[in-house]
Formats: sequence, C-alpha cells, structure tokens
Amino acid sequence: MKFIFVSSNIHKFQEVQEILGDFNLEITFHQQELPELQSESLEEIALFSAKYIYPQLQRPLFVEDTGLFIHALNGFPGPYASYVYKTIGNSGILHLLEGKNNRTAIFKTAIALTFSETDFKTFLGETQGTIAQIEKGKQGWGYDPIFIPLEGDQRTYAEMDLHEKNQLSHRRKCLKNMAEWLQKNKPIF
Amino acid sequence: MKFIFVSSNIHKFQEVQEILGDFNLEITFHQQELPELQSESLEEIALFSAKYIYPQLQRPLFVEDTGLFIHALNGFPGPYASYVYKTIGNSGILHLLEGKNNRTAIFKTAIALTFSETDFKTFLGETQGTIAQIEKGKQGWGYDPIFIPLEGDQRTYAEMDLHEKNQLSHRRKCLKNMAEWLQKNKPIF
Repeated sequence: MKFIFVSSNIHKFQEVQEILGDFNLEITFHQQELPELQSESLEEIALFSAKYIYPQLQRPLFVEDTGLFIHALNGFPGPYASYVYKTIGNSGILHLLEGKNNRTAIFKTAIALTFSETDFKTFLGETQGTIAQIEKGKQGWGYDPIFIPLEGDQRTYAEMDLHEKNQLSHRRKCLKNMAEWLQKNKPIF
Repeated sequence: MKFIFVSSNIHKFQEVQEILGDFNLEITFHQQELPELQSESLEEIALFSAKYIYPQLQRPLFVEDTGLFIHALNGFPGPYASYVYKTIGNSGILHLLEGKNNRTAIFKTAIALTFSETDFKTFLGETQGTIAQIEKGKQGWGYDPIFIPLEGDQRTYAEMDLHEKNQLSHRRKCLKNMAEWLQKNKPIF
C-alpha cells in the first residue's frame, strides 16, 4: 500500500520521494495547502494538519513540518520559517546575525503519520549546522543557501545536489525514523 | 449579560476592560492560552480560537488577535508578532529596519465574538503608524516602545499612559466596531 504525502510544496515531495526510495517505500502526492497550528512544537503542528486532512482522504497519509531554530536568535524563525522566509528572507536572517559570534542552528523536521482517525504516530529528525556569512549556492529552496550542515564540508545545502543534501538532511533523518518504525511495527507497508 | 474575554494576556484584558467601559459593556476575564491557527488573516486566527473555546464555556465570549505589519519587511512580523517579540524582540525589528527609508507600519486587531456554536461575528480595527528609530517609553508592553501612531504627536504607545493609548489604539477601533454592532444588532447586551 502506498502512503499519501500531503503538502503544498512540490520541492518537499521531490525530496521525500527520493529519500523514501532508499527504504523501499513508495508514496503518492496530494498537493494541498493545509491549516497549520501556531505552536513551538513541530510535531503538534504536523499532527494537527494530518488530523485535519485524514477525514477527506481516508487513506494512510503523512504530513511534515519543518523549522529552522537559530540559537543566537532564541530559536527564531522556528516553526514560522516559511512566513519569515516569505517576508524578510535570507537577507533578513543574515542581517539579524550581524555581529553575533554564535551562528549555530538546528534544522528540524517532524512528521505525523496517520492510519486512521485514531491511529497516529509522530517522528522527528534534526541536523545541526551553522548559518553562513552570505548566501551560497543555487540548489534547493528556502534557507538552503544559508544553512551549512555540521557533518558536511562547509558547503551550504544549496551548494549540494538534491541527492547529496538528502544524505545529510533533517528531512532524511525524520523519514528514516519513520521508515524504520514502519518496518518494525507495520511490516505490511 | 456579560461577555467573557478569553486570553492568556492580562495586559490585553486591562486594555479591553478600560475601552469597553466607554461603551457601557461589562466583561469578565477567562485567562487561558488558546490554540491559534497559522494564517495571514487575524480574523481567521481569532475565529478558530473562539470556536475552540466556546464548547468549554458555553457562554457569549470573544477572543482577539493582534498583529504588526511593517511595510518595508513585507508585512513581517504580521500575525506572528508574539513569537517574534519573544525571540528577536524590538531590537531585532529595529535592526531589520536599519537603512530602510520607509518605516510605516499598521497595527491590526481582529475580534471573534461568539454567541453560540453557529452564531459568530468578526471585527477589525487598525492604526497606521511608523516604527521609531529607537525604543522609547516604559508603559504598555510588546511593540509599544517602537510604534508611533500617525494620529499622535511622535510619541510611541509606550510613552503614553494606558488611557491615552486607548484613545488611539488599533484595539480600541476594533472594540468600538464590536460595541457599535452590538448596540444595533444585539441590544440585549
């Protein structure tokens, strides 16, 4: 059985599909903007959206939510990464970090997976990194040009091709947690 | 009959109570943190929270949501004013505006008023202003030290006492819209 990945963001689908291929999980895509809760918990946000859409689709599905948490900015932009990107963008983030020594940040992804109205499970994945001094690279989207994963080699996500980013990314770690849990607990999928 | 004002913020209650006194409306306060939707519409956010709490209280109530929309920042921080204040604060906003000529902004309040599960009404109020060059004044809370209402005299909200701010404020305009509507449509209150 294939899961439905529900998101308004086609970029996310492309990443999710590539990553889950490594775990022999096939998915379909349902492109839709979902209502999201204001919360500092990405899991809570993803779960709220998944519970909202389940009655419409009535098939196993998952929703993800991603945030960027910058330490020197007390976690900003956090779960509102998407709105902040649309308004002040990467240049706004770089501006806010001028003169700050600590540029560490964490990219986090949460997934809410749902099998029925009452059967839900959430997963988290995170990647530690630093915020670059300037925007670098053209690949990916969003904050990719300013996020340098710690496990990498000083390049931003946007300086890596999709496959390379997908080896290191917060989203992969979260999807891996989901895939491993599924293998163990729901081997039918 | 008294309306219940539901909010986690005691400062808001104090303002709302003072303002509604001018319109002979008495309220009680129910202090509670409510779930809020992520949305660029303050009315939608307030309505979602009001619909959430109504079944618990089962009495006429209202919820408000306020946002600060800065033009040069494409509307940032908008509906996420509270989270942005907690993380980057007024100094972050001033930093983002360095070198920008246009410092105009709008403070907006939306109210969702509910009489029953199916009887709802929303109101809006807004005050145009500019963002000060530095924080000024000690009164009020949140963005008050950086917001100068256009109708005033170059002082920030935080340089005015509560009564004076309440004559000009976005929150007053919204509450006035609500009070006038109530007089006309629900004279029982």
